[in-house]
Amino acid sequence: MQDSAESVEETQQLLDQYSERLPQMLDWLSQFGRDPEGGVTRLLYSDAWLEAQQALSHWMEQEGLEASFDQTGNLAGRLEGTDLSLSPAAAGSHIDTVVNGGSFDGALGVAAAALALSYLQKAYGPPKRTLIALSLCEEEGSRFPLAYWGSGSITGIRSWEADGQLADKDGITLLDAARRCGFGPDSLYRIPSMKLQSYVELHIEQGFVLEKMGQQAGVVSAIVGQHRYEIHLQGEANHAGTTPMRWRKDALAAASQMIAVTREAALLAGDPLVATVGSVSSAPGVSNVVAGSVTFTLDIRHPDDVVLQQFADELLRRFIHIADTEGIRLAAAERLRAAAVPMHGRIVRELEHICQKRGLESRMMPSGAGHDAQILSVICPTGMIFVPSRHGISHNPAEYTEPEALKGGFKILTDMLYQLGYGSVDL
Amino acid sequence: MQDSAESVEETQQLLDQYSERLPQMLDWLSQFGRDPEGGVTRLLYSDAWLEAQQALSHWMEQEGLEASFDQTGNLAGRLEGTDLSLSPAAAGSHIDTVVNGGSFDGALGVAAAALALSYLQKAYGPPKRTLIALSLCEEEGSRFPLAYWGSGSITGIRSWEADGQLADKDGITLLDAARRCGFGPDSLYRIPSMKLQSYVELHIEQGFVLEKMGQQAGVVSAIVGQHRYEIHLQGEANHAGTTPMRWRKDALAAASQMIAVTREAALLAGDPLVATVGSVSSAPGVSNVVAGSVTFTLDIRHPDDVVLQQFADELLRRFIHIADTEGIRLAAAERLRAAAVPMHGRIVRELEHICQKRGLESRMMPSGAGHDAQILSVICPTGMIFVPSRHGISHNPAEYTEPEALKGGFKILTDMLYQLGYGSVDL
Repeated sequence: MQDSAESVEETQQLLDQYSERLPQMLDWLSQFGRDPEGGVTRLLYSDAWLEAQQALSHWMEQEGLEASFDQTGNLAGRLEGTDLSLSPAAAGSHIDTVVNGGSFDGALGVAAAALALSYLQKAYGPPKRTLIALSLCEEEGSRFPLAYWGSGSITGIRSWEADGQLADKDGITLLDAARRCGFGPDSLYRIPSMKLQSYVELHIEQGFVLEKMGQQAGVVSAIVGQHRYEIHLQGEANHAGTTPMRWRKDALAAASQMIAVTREAALLAGDPLVATVGSVSSAPGVSNVVAGSVTFTLDIRHPDDVVLQQFADELLRRFIHIADTEGIRLAAAERLRAAAVPMHGRIVRELEHICQKRGLESRMMPSGAGHDAQILSVICPTGMIFVPSRHGISHNPAEYTEPEALKGGFKILTDMLYQLGYGSVDL
Repeated sequence: MQDSAESVEETQQLLDQYSERLPQMLDWLSQFGRDPEGGVTRLLYSDAWLEAQQALSHWMEQEGLEASFDQTGNLAGRLEGTDLSLSPAAAGSHIDTVVNGGSFDGALGVAAAALALSYLQKAYGPPKRTLIALSLCEEEGSRFPLAYWGSGSITGIRSWEADGQLADKDGITLLDAARRCGFGPDSLYRIPSMKLQSYVELHIEQGFVLEKMGQQAGVVSAIVGQHRYEIHLQGEANHAGTTPMRWRKDALAAASQMIAVTREAALLAGDPLVATVGSVSSAPGVSNVVAGSVTFTLDIRHPDDVVLQQFADELLRRFIHIADTEGIRLAAAERLRAAAVPMHGRIVRELEHICQKRGLESRMMPSGAGHDAQILSVICPTGMIFVPSRHGISHNPAEYTEPEALKGGFKILTDMLYQLGYGSVDL
């Protein structure tokens, strides 16, 4: 196909046609695991999940892609390149959901990648570099206590040996559940492949920054690093009527100062730092007894690990000062420490360039949530594109992205895959 | 008996002997409803409670008092006076306990009153004014959801008609439980009497002010008024990673400011004001979601209702200001409003005078907890004496008061009853 003005117009018309199919495809996918009251539940290795993966595989074959599963159950739809010396460029996401989730989180990235490859083949024929649409397993960690099982098994941080005996809430192990679907280390499927040139993921924002700013797309600069702590305060439970204020060791009064200070310090630090106390409980937890002990969670995120660490250190110092002043014993347990993952500079620039060329108003932004892209970043350059989430809602049946925004995101992903597969983007 | 120096010495020796019996009597009482692991559980109309009341009744008869129950199950031990035109002076407390309570809360006031009457009769013969030792029912409200059932039935604020169908956690009604013990409106027992000249109650402090100040007794100036609120804050549950700080409506961040302000304002107001947030819960209550809603309790107490009201009003105004600033909706539900109950001035002065005469270091103090005395204050002048609670602990097997402090309190109560029964204290 020639790059004449006529053919450019034709391919753009074709792209418009394909982009129209994306909302329908998401609708089609959402029928697998549809909850009676609305919403979608597709837990890893469940019937709904397996049916969706199989239907996707069938769809890929129909569209002329070569579909295959690996041992884990990751589905790859391949558009074979002409230069086999080039390692493949991948795009995708996951189709597993949280319990009663929405139709967009994960599914968007999978559907858009598959549809993009179908379009590219139709518009441009075989690429130089092989392109792969990936539907990865258990990104959410909703059924088994391991998020990123699919992408983790590709990079090698997850394995049957280490994780196969993890059980779901009914006591079924990951291995048994996988075998039930025909996957597992003793199946005939291939072991997960670790050779990728790049990985690009289109995802809903799961926040309301794009909506609020009236922007159509976000180019992710980095996936934020995250520290999670559980803070335990030990004071003295005393009678609320008979204990004078100045002699109290009120764990909740101390906690409340810490929570207030957390918000204050995070506001002062400014975007993109976020710090959240989402859960607090006091004991004995009755109205007429001074709280003897309090436990609360602390979640801090920033795309720069150094800034994150400094903020966390300083905040915990202030907590200790408050505890000392109030005569309270403090214990801080680190529950999670995930390093920030910058997206690949060349991909980020290319995505920004694509947005400009297409006249899509975009912003550079960190991703406050984790994604498969952060896992795959250890084996290849990665990039992410966000589209707006209405009211920032995700993991909920009310999750929604406007069709226009979906189409915009699809075109950005498609252009990027064109550059990687047919162009000469050097990473 | 004459008031000669010799007889004064004799009666004081006798009083010492009787005061020695008080710790033993508390020990004896604590056998009824003794929990296997320590502590005492005597719920209203339970076997343990009934056995204790009956044993007390028997004890009173043996000591020459005229014991009788009313329909409610209140036990009165009467030391008949010679002038029947004078209405009786009463002293007492309650023997019902919380689940796994201690041996002192309530029991002290009952045992001391009974022992005091026994002593007074032995030392001085019949009084002019009838004296009554009272063991009142269900002060705690531990079995049925009505505190002060015994004293309330005497004053008429409680009745079988209004409260008889209240049920315990097993669905047994107050009326059925009373009938099982032989009490109730259709029993042969008398209706509760409402004619008293005065009521004096000896009680453990249930706080650690006396212990901390090294004082042997407290003369209660007033039982504090109390306001209880449940505060509900409605913000917006959002993703902790993807929602910038400045766009959050974080109900827990707002609550924490309110809790911190509560403590700050109460410290500033100073003794005897106390304000407590004992319980807080956030929803959805997970570490990675900004709290969408928070509920917390607020308990404010002060012996002056005007001060209490002003403090509560001002604090709630500050809550509303914080809520407005944070974009949070606030709903404050009043859960309790109990007026402060001043003790009778003449009784208070007499108790202080007695402490001085006996060389007992005492302090005037409000009672931060509620007591039968506050209920009975609507029908007669009332007074209260506190003795130290070790570490301020009550409602717990570790509840403890030193024998010396028990004896001191007993002597104060006995002197007061002597004044009321044999002397010429005019109320």
